[in-house]
Order: sequence, then C-alpha cells, then structure tokens
Amino acid sequence: MTSPNVPDPLVSTDDIRTDAPLADARLFVLPEPLALELGGSLPNVRCCYETWGTLNADASNAILVCHAISGDSHAARHRENDAPGWWDGLIGPGLPIDTDRFFVVCPNVLGGCRGSTGPGDIPDGDIPDGDIPTADIPAADNSATNSDSPDVANPARPYGAEFPRITIGDMVEVQRRLADHLGITKWRAVVGGSLGGHQVLQWVSRYPDSTQTCIAIATSPRLTSQALGFDVIARNAIQTDPHFAGGQYYGTDKRPDTGLAIARMLGHITYLSVAAMEAKFDPDRHDPRQIASQFEQRFSVGSYLAHQGQKFTTRFDANSYVTLSLAMDLFDLGGTRLRLMETFDECSCDFLLVGFSSDWLFPPSQSREIVNALTALDKQVTYAEITTDAGHDAFLIDRDIAMYGPLVRERLADSPSSYKAPVELTSAEESILDLVATGDSVLDLGCGQGELLSAIQQRDADKSGRLMGVEVAQENILATAVRGIHVIDYDLNNGLPAFIDNQFDIVVLNATLQAVKNVVELLDEMLRVGKRVVISFPNFAYRRLREDYVNRGRSPRAPGEFDYDWHNTPNRRFPTIADVHDLLSDMNVTIDREIYWDVTDKKSIAVDDEPNLNADTAVIEMHR
Amino acid sequence: MTSPNVPDPLVSTDDIRTDAPLADARLFVLPEPLALELGGSLPNVRCCYETWGTLNADASNAILVCHAISGDSHAARHRENDAPGWWDGLIGPGLPIDTDRFFVVCPNVLGGCRGSTGPGDIPDGDIPDGDIPTADIPAADNSATNSDSPDVANPARPYGAEFPRITIGDMVEVQRRLADHLGITKWRAVVGGSLGGHQVLQWVSRYPDSTQTCIAIATSPRLTSQALGFDVIARNAIQTDPHFAGGQYYGTDKRPDTGLAIARMLGHITYLSVAAMEAKFDPDRHDPRQIASQFEQRFSVGSYLAHQGQKFTTRFDANSYVTLSLAMDLFDLGGTRLRLMETFDECSCDFLLVGFSSDWLFPPSQSREIVNALTALDKQVTYAEITTDAGHDAFLIDRDIAMYGPLVRERLADSPSSYKAPVELTSAEESILDLVATGDSVLDLGCGQGELLSAIQQRDADKSGRLMGVEVAQENILATAVRGIHVIDYDLNNGLPAFIDNQFDIVVLNATLQAVKNVVELLDEMLRVGKRVVISFPNFAYRRLREDYVNRGRSPRAPGEFDYDWHNTPNRRFPTIADVHDLLSDMNVTIDREIYWDVTDKKSIAVDDEPNLNADTAVIEMHR
Repeated sequence: MTSPNVPDPLVSTDDIRTDAPLADARLFVLPEPLALELGGSLPNVRCCYETWGTLNADASNAILVCHAISGDSHAARHRENDAPGWWDGLIGPGLPIDTDRFFVVCPNVLGGCRGSTGPGDIPDGDIPDGDIPTADIPAADNSATNSDSPDVANPARPYGAEFPRITIGDMVEVQRRLADHLGITKWRAVVGGSLGGHQVLQWVSRYPDSTQTCIAIATSPRLTSQALGFDVIARNAIQTDPHFAGGQYYGTDKRPDTGLAIARMLGHITYLSVAAMEAKFDPDRHDPRQIASQFEQRFSVGSYLAHQGQKFTTRFDANSYVTLSLAMDLFDLGGTRLRLMETFDECSCDFLLVGFSSDWLFPPSQSREIVNALTALDKQVTYAEITTDAGHDAFLIDRDIAMYGPLVRERLADSPSSYKAPVELTSAEESILDLVATGDSVLDLGCGQGELLSAIQQRDADKSGRLMGVEVAQENILATAVRGIHVIDYDLNNGLPAFIDNQFDIVVLNATLQAVKNVVELLDEMLRVGKRVVISFPNFAYRRLREDYVNRGRSPRAPGEFDYDWHNTPNRRFPTIADVHDLLSDMNVTIDREIYWDVTDKKSIAVDDEPNLNADTAVIEMHR
Repeated sequence: MTSPNVPDPLVSTDDIRTDAPLADARLFVLPEPLALELGGSLPNVRCCYETWGTLNADASNAILVCHAISGDSHAARHRENDAPGWWDGLIGPGLPIDTDRFFVVCPNVLGGCRGSTGPGDIPDGDIPDGDIPTADIPAADNSATNSDSPDVANPARPYGAEFPRITIGDMVEVQRRLADHLGITKWRAVVGGSLGGHQVLQWVSRYPDSTQTCIAIATSPRLTSQALGFDVIARNAIQTDPHFAGGQYYGTDKRPDTGLAIARMLGHITYLSVAAMEAKFDPDRHDPRQIASQFEQRFSVGSYLAHQGQKFTTRFDANSYVTLSLAMDLFDLGGTRLRLMETFDECSCDFLLVGFSSDWLFPPSQSREIVNALTALDKQVTYAEITTDAGHDAFLIDRDIAMYGPLVRERLADSPSSYKAPVELTSAEESILDLVATGDSVLDLGCGQGELLSAIQQRDADKSGRLMGVEVAQENILATAVRGIHVIDYDLNNGLPAFIDNQFDIVVLNATLQAVKNVVELLDEMLRVGKRVVISFPNFAYRRLREDYVNRGRSPRAPGEFDYDWHNTPNRRFPTIADVHDLLSDMNVTIDREIYWDVTDKKSIAVDDEPNLNADTAVIEMHR
C-alpha cells in the first residue's frame, strides 16, 4: 500500500546501526580503580574502543570521536564489507575526518553496554580476554546468582541499579586514561554530537590544553527543562517496570523490556522534528505496518514506535540507559554566560559548533549560549546553524553531514585550503584593508563570503590579529569558514550581545548598512565592541541618482548597490553621506577618516569635491 | 529555598481543577441506545452536564461549551463560593460568555469518568438517581464481580477495556440528544479548546445549521504525527501496566496508576512550551520539592511530573484516558484543503479560530489549515494567533484569555458593538470607499484597525457584501475584530494561498505597498483573487520630496508616509506613480481609474496635472 517513493515508516536513522559484532574493537583496562566525580570509585574499569588510521610518530594526528546515548565504538566502517558505522558519512578515507591522515579513536562510554564497563558488569569479575561482552550477551550470563536484595558487595553478581552514579566527567577520565595508554598527550581534535558533544565540551573545560580543536555538534551546556522532563519520564518507565526488579534482572528470563521500549519510543519522537514526522508518517497515517508486538500499532507512527522500541531492547541494557541518561541530565556547564565564560576561560583550542534549525531537543539557541561565551572570551570559534527538517537526528544524516562536513574538514586542515585563493576586493574594501594595520583584530559584520578578512589574512599571514566574521546567510557562512576564517551565524538585527566592550581593534560594516533594520542600535553596538569602527555604504545622494530621480520621476537607480528595481531591491535603507554625518553627529561619534569613491563614473577614483554629490561610495572610520 | 517570586514548580495550570463534587451537575439519560460511528451501540447512555444562566423563550441564547481531555462539566463557578471551574476567566456574569445573557451548557464527554457514561460503567447498570458517579468513586464500587476474562455480556461488571471504541462524532451525538432534551434546536454558539475544539468542529461539519457561531480554540483538523506519537506512548504505558489487567481493574485494590501517571507526565510536557518550562523549572533546577512518590524526583521538573502524574490517578480513570485519547487520535477532518473544504462546505455559521504562537501540540499552522479552507469557501471567519509563551495551556490561562476573550465577546454580540463608532478616513480611503458599490465583497489586505471596512459596513449596513480584513499585527487584528469585522492573521509576504480565484469583487491594498517585500507576487495574487484591485500608495516622486532630496542632499522626506528618518522608516519600498505605471504595464494590468491627491500642500485636493510631480498619494483601480 506504500508508494515506492514513500520511505518505509518502520525505518529510523538509527537503523544504520546494525549491532555490529565489534570485530575490530579492542579492550583497554585501567590499571587503577577510577575515582568518580560524585564520590566512590570503580575497580577494573574496561574501555572498549576502535581505531582507524595510523598514529604518526609525534602522536599529533589523533582525533577522539565521542558517541551519543545509544551509540558505540563502531563509528565507521573499517573496510568496504564491514558493518556500517553510525558516522560513516564523516569518518573514512578522504572524508572530513580523513582516516588516511588521522588516527581516529572512538571509545564506548563508561556506563554503556557495548563493551565498556557498565551496570551489567560484575564488580570483581575477571576482565574478559576473548569476546567483548555487550548488551546482547549481558554479563549476567556469567553470573549464577539471582539474589533478591541488591547487594553490591556480592562479587558474583552484576552491579545492576547499584552501579554508581557517573558523570560525563567520569567518561572523560576513562578516555583520558585511554589516551595515555595510546601515547597521545594532545588530541588533534575531539569531536562529538549530542551526548558526544557533552563529552568534548567536558574535555576542553576540564583539560583546556588537551586538544587543538573542539568540534561540538547538536549539543548544549546542559539540557533544557523540557529535555530533562522527557528523560525523567523515560527513567520512570524503566524503573517502574516490574521486571526491572531494582535493576537485578540479569540472569532471569524477565527484563524490563516494556519500560525500556517506552523510553526508547519517547527518545525517537524527540530525535525527529514535527515536519520530519509528518513527512515520514502522514502518507500512511492510518496504515500501520504489521509487526508482532505487545504495543499498540494502530497508526503508522504507532507501528514505527513499537518496532523501534522493541528492537532497542535487543541491543541495549536498561540499567545502562538509566545510567547514561542520568549522566546527561546531571551535565551542567552553566546556565549563564558568566558561568560558561568561567567554564571555557582557559581553553587554548579553536572551536567549531554546529546546530540544526529544527532540533528541539538540543535547540540551536543552546549552541549559541556556548558560542556567545566563547566569543566574549576571545576564543577562536566558528558557528553554523544548518537549516534542515531532520531535527536532532540531523547530525547523523548524510544530507546534513554534506552541509557541515566541509566545516569539519576545514577545521582539521593543516593549512587552511583557500588562504591562497585570490580575492577580488571592491574599492571600499581596498580602503578598509588600508585602514587595518598588521596585527589589528577585526570583526567584520555581514562578512559575505569572507573576502575582506581573507585579504587581511593573506596580507598579514601569521602576523594577523584575530579575524572574525558574522553572517546570517548559510551559504556565506560555509564559504567564509572554508576559507579558514572564523565566522558565527548571527542576525545583526539582534545587536551584538555576544561581544564585550572594546573587544576588537576594528569593527567593520561593509556594504551592509543599507540592509540593516535597527541602524542606530547596531552602530551603538559596534562603537561599544570596537575601539574603532569602519563603515562603508552606497551614497543615495550620488549625482547620477539625483539626476535619475528628478529627470525620470522614478525611484532612482544607478550602477552599484542601488541598481535594483524599486519593488525588489534588497536594500531597506537609503542613506546619503549627509544623512550619515547628521546621524553620527547626533550620536556623538568622532569621525577619524573619510574616504569617498566614484566607482560608477570614474572607475574607482577617490572623490574630494562635494562627496555627497560626487561619490557613490563612502568609507568612514570613527570611534566614540 | 524558593524565592517568593518563583512560582511553586509543583503547581500546574491544571491545579485550578479541584475535583469539584459536581454539586450543580445534572444527569440526562438518552431514551434510546446510542448507535456508534464505528459500529455497535451503547445502551443506557448517561450524560452529566451543568448549566449557567437561563434559556430564553425562543431558546435562541444557548451556548454549548465542550471540554478538553481531562476536563469535566464544571467549566465555571455557579456562585462566588463555588469550586473553581476550568474556564472561569471566560464564562460568568459580564464575562465574554456572559451568563447574564446566555444559557450555557457544558456536558461531560461520552467515555469520560466525571459523570457521563464511560468504561467504568456497568453495561446494564441502573442509572443512578442520586450522587453522580465519578472516577473517584469508580463504578466498580457498585460491582461485586472481579472475573478473570473480559466479558462484555456480563451485565454485572464494568466495561473496562471492552468499552466500545468511540469517536468525537459519538460525543457530539450525545450532546445533540441533550440539546433536544433541553429544547434547543440551534445553538447561539458552540465553543471549545483542544479536544473541545474537535467537538465543535465535528458539530458544524456534521450539522452545518446547528449553530450560529463556531468558536474553536487551540485546535486542529487532526493531530500531527508527533502528537499522535505521544498519545500512542501514553496508551502503551497504561495498557502495559500489569495492573491494567485488560482494563478490568475495577473493584480490585490494584489500578494501573503507574501507567496512567506516566501518560499524564507526558501530557504535561506537551501542554507547556519549552520557554514556559525553562521559566518554571530552571530557577530551582536541581532543587526538587520533597514529595512521597515511587517516581524519580531528582530535578525540579521531576518532582513536578511525579506530583502531577500521581495526582491525576486520584481523579481520572485509565480506561477513560485510553478511550478519549484514542477518540482524539481517530479524529480526522482531512489532511488537505480540498478535504477540509468538503468538510465545511455546507456550514452556515460564522467562525472564530484562535491559535497560540508557542503551542506545539496543536500548532497554529493547524488552525490556519482550517482557516484557509473556510476562507476559500467564503465563510465568515476570524482568526487570531495570540503571541504567548504558555504553549497549549494558553487557552486556559487568564493572561491569554484576556487577549482572546474580547474576540469571543464580539462574536457573541447581538449587534457588533463598535459598528456605530465614527471612523476617520484618509483622502485615499474616501476614494476607495467611493469605488466600492453597495453589496461589493471587499478583501482589505493590511487592513490596520479595520477603518475602511468599518466605514463600508456603516454605510451599507445589512446591504453590504462580504467584508474581510487581513492583518499581521496582533493589536490591529484584535481592534478590527472587535469592530465586528472578520479578519485573519496572515503575513502578506506569503502570498494569498487561502483565497480562490475571483473570490472578491474588490481586493484593496491601502497604504501598504511601501511595506511589502514581494511586490510583484502580491499584486499577481491580488489580481487573481479580486475581480478588481484597488491600491493606494504614497508617491515617492512628489514635488516636495524631489525638492528636499535635490536641495538638501538627504534621503528625502515630506509629511505623510515618507516622513521618517532614513534609518528607522517602516517603509522598505519607495514607489513613484511612474514606477507603478511601468510595473503594471509590464504585468499586463488594465488600469480602470486613477485618483491622485495632494494631501500635504493642498489639504486633500485631487490632482489632475502631472500627478507624478504634484500628487503625494495615488489610488489606482485595475483588473487583469
């Protein structure tokens, strides 16, 4: 009954995970018990991990990849006929995380059930040296006991719900021991999405010099209260399942599969956007797939949830789910910018953050909170908000990886790839370039494709100051970022709250004034953030425009920024040089320098005589 | 630990419901078995209802109020010391649903557990003639049996899960029998929010002449797939609770309270917006209230969910919850505009729809689907989207009732209250008024506060054609609606997809052209929807503007629409009469009449000589 074009509604993004037998995974056992952040310690901690590529001689090419709540160490294929990995679109030979160049490490998290130590383990159990234990073969198989009361001191049965409360910080500590073991003292990059993003943020906040680059995707400084609420309900469903039995269900034939399935159903809704669900389930709304299930399957979405919920119970351990979701809920880098600034104050790495427009579980506004703190700290940070209908799942979807993958590739480039690509500048941009001294820090608002900043970078090379762009058009953000220029996704009409006073030597607004809604507010903000401010704008009082207007009696136009029909111009402001002078005077701004061009008639000749009549372009440097 | 300004996070909107003893409720028993939409019938159907006010002699003042999933018949207080009702802000003496004027009826829905027949009833049980049975005293109290296998033929035990699958249509049928019983042949209005909105939409689609007015708030033609998914999970939680026992838990000491509580927790998250949850729970994020519960209470939001979930089990029956949520999920008036147009084709009532900006359970886009269908059908419809952070709950919150209440009041006015209020028109509006013949249907795009439409209405009174406004500013929508003019909340930059070809005699765009982004697209749409089109706009080539520009060398301004500073004008287009002529010629538009005014210098004198120079305002009538 489904048309061939309608994807099977039973299939989830998650189905790319095939419960690979972890054939390439290795085990590392911590030599010492692990002291836990919330008190106590764990003995015999085992970390299951996979690697790709080869560590180079000075161990400088290692990248740590951190997985999300239901992920594992199998981030990517190891060879063509290998089982699919969950980030195959990002990790591999020639891909953004290029396994021909990098040594990639992906560990299963502490508390998980895919090889690393978790609630299914026996506290004093032997470390297996053969097969890697996973949720499908719970550690309870090794246990003969089935006692009624939880007793963690009993060495012969698994932790169950007695597994200590762990944190994202504890996961990071295990990964740190693994790095020591592998001979890695500093990562080339730490990379992760969702809960994996929490891990990379925890890495750099706790060990500020531990990595050269931090790439955090679809993540947050802490969960929203809404996301917390969903997690609480999921744990309630698991822990009130009668078969949960206080977490000691291992070795019995009853597991809290009902509760775990309900928790997973809830998760699946939060991973999708409302639009994605509509597209996926509405064509077959009343036509569910027939599957065997104790759960309702009345609607298309019902059979999907039942199928995905049940399937999850065959590969995941309920105690692990409780443990990991609680660790995620306890993660809290701070609810204010000040707290976040304290968190990241000492970081020496550069940052790439990516959010997704339709992600309501980790909304892009939460990535912005981190970006705003990093920006105020003068950290090197790029932020892109990818427009997509895929919701939180977007970070795993090839179509969206194709959008943000180039940003990851660029952040991992040895020398930014396009630095040497020639940049053509306008006359105004040439003037601005001249106003920037070598070493000046420059913030370019509405930076377009980063032409001006790239020209400064090429001119000054490693002597250049901090260069940063702000843009709102996604294609421009991507184009700027792949030039190796840091750029953040931001709408200038909201002011510049991310920036602190006098943060930049120069703040530039180049050929953008005429498109700004809140002109005065933005100029005020620029004068606050920049020691000096440079604006360039087209002059609406230019002779040819006046003539055109008076003679033709039409909304005036002339070559350049005002060469649009009245009804479809992107401009919304029509400033003249005299107007801007008046405004700057009203605003108590000191003008330091003015440069005027007649690009139209004189082919870029500077204008000294009556610029409000004779210049089509103005460049004004000022301060307050 | 909570500051006095932080509301107690345990409190919900729902806490206004106090489980009133239904002291004022009455019972009506259907004289015949009720034939059900999905087959079969129900004998002995009981409807519990409350009324306010007095039915007038010709039974023309009766208003039906329909409740949401967890509501009941106690919509409002009956007297000062009465238990609070769930819509006390809307219903009462002098309130928008004025019980001094109207006879208000609110029945408990079929399938509920607050007095009307539901799964807790015994199929052949006697109709009680004393106290009204409710969930707190489940019908099982009357039953001595506790048999193991469900057997609906057993007359001595409740339906439980054997209660037949019912629909919103079945609820309406019971209400219809109640109306007959009360002697009401036509409602003055049917009013409801959420599931209550589904009932009123079902009323008018099934009985197109049954009411004079249909007021549907925070509702939809059918649930989104996301909302369906949440309902499926809620039912799964209830039905897999071991104490559910196939729905035959009545009379036992074990009820599926765990599953029902989890279902309710889920509901509570969907009723709030992410912003509302942040405001409510973030100040005390890690500081839960201490309550006795089997559920996790680790976070502020956790204690809230545990408290609300548990509380719900003391007043609601799990089988009823399953029955009502499934009825809501099966409700489907159509997923396309064509289907919705078929649904509402025969309706003779006028409509008021209200959506809430942060409602993601019944998103405003779903109200718009209904509005677009009604608009295309030429129905009388007003739609307002209220800007609020309160989420779906907004329809119950006094602050939001204060916003939409006046619209309800106006729809229920005998003669619209402000019809006679004098309206001051501009010269252009006077011209447009002259172009409208008595009886012409008029669509006014960007209608402001409805001045022009109100003037037409006052001039032509009951001879006027269909008058409708479109506005995007909430305060203007409210101001237009309380003049008794139908207006829909719509952004003109999205075109006019709600309207069909040649739907109006005249489509007006008055003093709005200069603020439109997509000028050509909008004009094309107007020419499609209107047999004639009238635009008025300020002329940017007006003499005083040209002089000002040439002489001062500044972005020109003159009294009127162009009297703004260049940097903060709301205008984004600067049309001249000559420009508009050129464009209309390019668009193959026939100009039928042109009227030009010089309001600035000549104090509203019509201009014949060189209007592009001498007129500051143009009115052009055209068609294609």
